[in-house]
Amino acid sequence: MALIVQKYGGSSLESAERIRAVAERIVATKKAGHDVVVVCSAMGDTTDELLDLAAEVNPTPPAREMDMLLTAGERISNSLVAMAVASFGVDVRSFTGSQAGVITTERYGNARIIEVTPGRVQEAVDEGKVAIVAGFQGVNRDTRDITTLGRGGSDTTAVALAAAMNADECEIYSDVDGVYTADPRIVSDARKLDKLCFEEMLELAASGSKILVLRSVEYARAFNVPMRVRSSYSNDTGTLVAGALEDIPMEEAVLSGVATDKSEAKITVLGIPDTPGEAAKIFRTLADAEINIDTVLQNISTREEKKTDITFTLPVADRPRAMTLLTKLQQDEGWTDVTHNDEIGKVSLVGAGMKSHPGVTADFAEALRDAGVNIEMINTSEIRITAVIRESELDNACRAIHDRFDLGGDEPAVVYAGTGR
Amino acid sequence: MALIVQKYGGSSLESAERIRAVAERIVATKKAGHDVVVVCSAMGDTTDELLDLAAEVNPTPPAREMDMLLTAGERISNSLVAMAVASFGVDVRSFTGSQAGVITTERYGNARIIEVTPGRVQEAVDEGKVAIVAGFQGVNRDTRDITTLGRGGSDTTAVALAAAMNADECEIYSDVDGVYTADPRIVSDARKLDKLCFEEMLELAASGSKILVLRSVEYARAFNVPMRVRSSYSNDTGTLVAGALEDIPMEEAVLSGVATDKSEAKITVLGIPDTPGEAAKIFRTLADAEINIDTVLQNISTREEKKTDITFTLPVADRPRAMTLLTKLQQDEGWTDVTHNDEIGKVSLVGAGMKSHPGVTADFAEALRDAGVNIEMINTSEIRITAVIRESELDNACRAIHDRFDLGGDEPAVVYAGTGR
Repeated sequence: MALIVQKYGGSSLESAERIRAVAERIVATKKAGHDVVVVCSAMGDTTDELLDLAAEVNPTPPAREMDMLLTAGERISNSLVAMAVASFGVDVRSFTGSQAGVITTERYGNARIIEVTPGRVQEAVDEGKVAIVAGFQGVNRDTRDITTLGRGGSDTTAVALAAAMNADECEIYSDVDGVYTADPRIVSDARKLDKLCFEEMLELAASGSKILVLRSVEYARAFNVPMRVRSSYSNDTGTLVAGALEDIPMEEAVLSGVATDKSEAKITVLGIPDTPGEAAKIFRTLADAEINIDTVLQNISTREEKKTDITFTLPVADRPRAMTLLTKLQQDEGWTDVTHNDEIGKVSLVGAGMKSHPGVTADFAEALRDAGVNIEMINTSEIRITAVIRESELDNACRAIHDRFDLGGDEPAVVYAGTGR
Repeated sequence: MALIVQKYGGSSLESAERIRAVAERIVATKKAGHDVVVVCSAMGDTTDELLDLAAEVNPTPPAREMDMLLTAGERISNSLVAMAVASFGVDVRSFTGSQAGVITTERYGNARIIEVTPGRVQEAVDEGKVAIVAGFQGVNRDTRDITTLGRGGSDTTAVALAAAMNADECEIYSDVDGVYTADPRIVSDARKLDKLCFEEMLELAASGSKILVLRSVEYARAFNVPMRVRSSYSNDTGTLVAGALEDIPMEEAVLSGVATDKSEAKITVLGIPDTPGEAAKIFRTLADAEINIDTVLQNISTREEKKTDITFTLPVADRPRAMTLLTKLQQDEGWTDVTHNDEIGKVSLVGAGMKSHPGVTADFAEALRDAGVNIEMINTSEIRITAVIRESELDNACRAIHDRFDLGGDEPAVVYAGTGR
């Protein structure tokens, strides 16, 4: 008998019919002899509908009130799932984030979990009940006000509860049945992976894979909670994300997959005086504005002596703000120009096997060359290689790398309705 | 400077536009120098939509989960009203029933308020903020689970908060601008009343007036909280409900109004052996089934000696259950027959002035006789006369009594859209 935490996303709960299907799965897990704690997102479009209502009432609503509003969505799905489970004759209790002891920082809209004190949830489980917990929400440690956890908040709730309750596994259900070697919509022979270590999943999530939110994987890694990515439409066992990179025997380390990301833009600052501290001014300015930059390239300008160019990537949403800040600095600092390009893409190859295969970078670059793709920037970690290329060449590049490293399966990938929200 | 509690019903909050209108009123009250605490019902049809969803998922949902579900409705309206108030530059905080310290019994779906400990609400008010509290909801004293207060729960929340915070007045906003001498849809010259004592309002509410829920008036009377019935569509000062019957000087005591009620049925048990305890058996059977009976009439049957007939009224919804129970008893007890009639109505005249006008009952009966209305039963209290008549004659009877006691005004009554939900 194990303690299983199951998290269901909004698309898995979008109708009464889907809620009953989810309840069947919960009941089956319980009847198989396991203890079950369930974390629910808000139903389908509920959150968007609430956001629309808020915008009609006040275009710039107070963040505290926005959190009070949005948490109603999970309260609704939560109690409906509990009712559906009860309809199968199984004893069940639902809990809000606050009741489940999800204690957070005070940052409304994007609070961090400080600790989880799931006494009431544990008590329900000890009494043989299924416990249903509203995801995405918690309670401010200081003021006892309601907070929300931001993007991927329900996944994080599930992992944090699993950690606090010492669960055997945290299952994340959506409309995709696992982690694939590449996006099956781009690569037709993409293969579902059975297992990944935490570091590989972190690199994939940071490189554009949408299947798990980076933050929830970081939490799972920190508390060593095995996660399993599963589909609420199938009985496939999905993909297990567990274990540390250093525990993978060298002979079992492989290349896991290719991730693509269209969400970044690049900015180039041209003609920077090549004196100490000039580059730091750029990065300090952006850091103060809470803009995260990713891949950075610095090279000696060929046009003028003693001057350099710096190119870096950043989220496309932050690009206009960054341009405004840097254009302001340009005159004072004597830079030649500041330019940008939103039409870039990143393609990354990730895998523990990279450590033991020194030729991977060369093969990676050759695969792109053979496909006629020009590499603008390149960036590597211990188990990842990323190339910044033109956005229009991204799919082509993804397929070329997937083929070159022979990551495909024998059968075409299964794509469910709605895959790749 | 006063402390005003304002309660807004669902129809006053049915759209973003209406919510902004409500916020304007709240802000105006605050800017007039008062402290303001607001209690909100769920928006328009939200509760019905949630009930429909629940029915799809589980036709007999657990009551605890139903309360968790339904309270999302007030959480939504509550935070939206707070956002709307904030848009006028006024500092505001919203609170759930639990956060506002509304402590209740454990009876899900129909909990009673045990006490209100509004520390956080008071703190917000002391800081100069408008406080918005979700109506209809509380928290179970023992289990800390979410409860709902049943019909009229938001009015009761408002009155209980007003009592706990020692407010100067509790304003109840809906789409009707006060308490009228009769339903303006029936009596065209019905007049709005400026003031009523608690006992008069209780008698009107118990006699079919829908404007205030009996329970909230009982609470207001017990804690001596002045209530004011107002419309969210006008600036009329509405009707003040305050003060005790015994404090009204005899010369100021008048007749207040006529109420009608179509929600009752009557049952007649014929040929009951006229021995002690026979009538008690009927009432005990119904009481054990939690069926409340109202007007009772017992008379010696003319057909047989030593036998009596008993007629009583009860809510029409309980009539089928009552008939089943009594028909079962009929044979054992040797009653001649049990009959029922759902097509009855009650017309009541209410007013403190009745105490000092001994001829009222005679005038009341004559008015009905002159209108050709037959009285089936009659029942009186210190300040009320009620006649049970045929439902089809109810409007006619209401107009006749209203005319006879000269309750009308010089101008036709104003009827707003939606009056008389």
